[in-house]
Amino acid sequence: MAAALALSLRGRGRTAPNPNVGCVIVRDRRVIGRGWTQPGGRPHAEAMALAQAGDAARGATAYVTLEPCAHASARGPACADLLATAGVARVVYALGDSDPRTDGKGAARLVRTGISVESGVLARDAASAMGGFLARRDLGRPLVTLKLATSLDGQIALASGESRWITGPQARAHVHLERARHEAILVGRGTFDADAPRLDVRLAGLEQRAPRRLLLTRGAAPEGWQAIATPADIASLEKVDHLFVEGGAQAAAAFLAADLVDRLLLYRAPILIGAGRPALGDIGLGSLADAHDRWRLSDTRMLGSDRLEVYLRA
Amino acid sequence: MAAALALSLRGRGRTAPNPNVGCVIVRDRRVIGRGWTQPGGRPHAEAMALAQAGDAARGATAYVTLEPCAHASARGPACADLLATAGVARVVYALGDSDPRTDGKGAARLVRTGISVESGVLARDAASAMGGFLARRDLGRPLVTLKLATSLDGQIALASGESRWITGPQARAHVHLERARHEAILVGRGTFDADAPRLDVRLAGLEQRAPRRLLLTRGAAPEGWQAIATPADIASLEKVDHLFVEGGAQAAAAFLAADLVDRLLLYRAPILIGAGRPALGDIGLGSLADAHDRWRLSDTRMLGSDRLEVYLRA
Repeated sequence: MAAALALSLRGRGRTAPNPNVGCVIVRDRRVIGRGWTQPGGRPHAEAMALAQAGDAARGATAYVTLEPCAHASARGPACADLLATAGVARVVYALGDSDPRTDGKGAARLVRTGISVESGVLARDAASAMGGFLARRDLGRPLVTLKLATSLDGQIALASGESRWITGPQARAHVHLERARHEAILVGRGTFDADAPRLDVRLAGLEQRAPRRLLLTRGAAPEGWQAIATPADIASLEKVDHLFVEGGAQAAAAFLAADLVDRLLLYRAPILIGAGRPALGDIGLGSLADAHDRWRLSDTRMLGSDRLEVYLRA
Repeated sequence: MAAALALSLRGRGRTAPNPNVGCVIVRDRRVIGRGWTQPGGRPHAEAMALAQAGDAARGATAYVTLEPCAHASARGPACADLLATAGVARVVYALGDSDPRTDGKGAARLVRTGISVESGVLARDAASAMGGFLARRDLGRPLVTLKLATSLDGQIALASGESRWITGPQARAHVHLERARHEAILVGRGTFDADAPRLDVRLAGLEQRAPRRLLLTRGAAPEGWQAIATPADIASLEKVDHLFVEGGAQAAAAFLAADLVDRLLLYRAPILIGAGRPALGDIGLGSLADAHDRWRLSDTRMLGSDRLEVYLRA
């Protein structure tokens, strides 16, 4: 299942509104098929893995990160049917799919054809790997990641506005990798006017992965951009399950004030700036007690001389 | 020598203007004496260790973090003489003592009496352990540690001034331990007026270790406090080899602007504050290029849910 979860991440940011599923087919302790939801949502992970496995799938075990779907569509057959037809003996999945067209029906269909079914394996990790899909399904909006790149004292620029560069090349490359994992990136009007950011993915081999560009503004969108007036408007974005908020201080604060940030990427350079431009505007905090117990450190690593910390909503 | 260095730290913050030296006497692979400079500077580490070892010191090896002194005083005999009289066979020390009364004379006196002498062992670690003494000797001022306790976005209070508490009890206890390792603590006038801080050491067994209290102000000092008008005035402080700058933002910035901070303790709580009170005032930074390569991460650890990072001047 861990291998299936790793495969599922390959589709993250490119499968909305479909879930980014991973699938591994194992027979006699050997992996005979690997699949993940392809860009745009099809083929599904199971279809790809079964195609690899071919006849060897008969009697094999399929590990899938989400309950196999029970509904055929014009774009492809139901995965539960595909698995049954291929003759797999056992299906292990991590999370149930509450889509009413599947919701237990996928598992039931497998059981009916004599396939042994097990669920709930590494469910917590699967919820993290498919967080965007689940946020859309359960919260009706994309999973929101906020990026901050600051000095040790929390500044994102000098008072003069100079901000290039606070973090080093490794940290900036990591930001580009994160961009590639999101369907859309958002900046505020102030950042747009000051920096006219390209927000592209400048990593070899990933240049085509530049996400859609959103501008938080009550005004009109420039060409090549889409405007949203308030953070709450992200609920209506189509085919966006992962949103990357890149700045600046006012846009970041607006999302935090609306309690619409699920994941915080904090890139910190070992420098002090002093009286400059702080990372955040007003987030509407009434007292310190309200600030505590909202964030949990999930990961930390060095990127050159900078440190990345990843915090998740507690 | 590592054991001698650990012992030397027991005196840190209490021996100025004397160095905080550590000494271990070893014979037949057994430790027979341990000493460290006592509060106020006497007895010296060697005298304490030799008193423990007694007659067993004959033929033993003494490990000392600083070259044994060659000058007797009204307060005690020269350590080089003490070691010779005790009959030690070998003396290993980490750093030479450039005090003109010793500066090689200590070693020479040992060699003349037939003692084998080795120097430079763990010299770098010794320079760190006796950093306050060396700052006073080489820079003519105390070693300065700046403490900052901030949110993830570098704020030290809400806009309302509310600042209790950002960090948790473990981090605050660690600050009290650091206080006990300094001869003096400094705050700025704004912090004094706002918080009237006690700056004492509220740790069981260390209540008596509260350092002297300094106020950065051009005005008069309140009772129980000593005033200094500018950061540069720390050079004239008597019996202060370690200075702990606790805040607030203007005092911290004044020391940074004067390039008088050697060590930075950054306590960070996993909270976001937004538009509050930033950790630092203007530090006189002209460009981002000037901010880089000034700080090197030396240590990091979790204190409850807060993280402590220790940066040293690069």
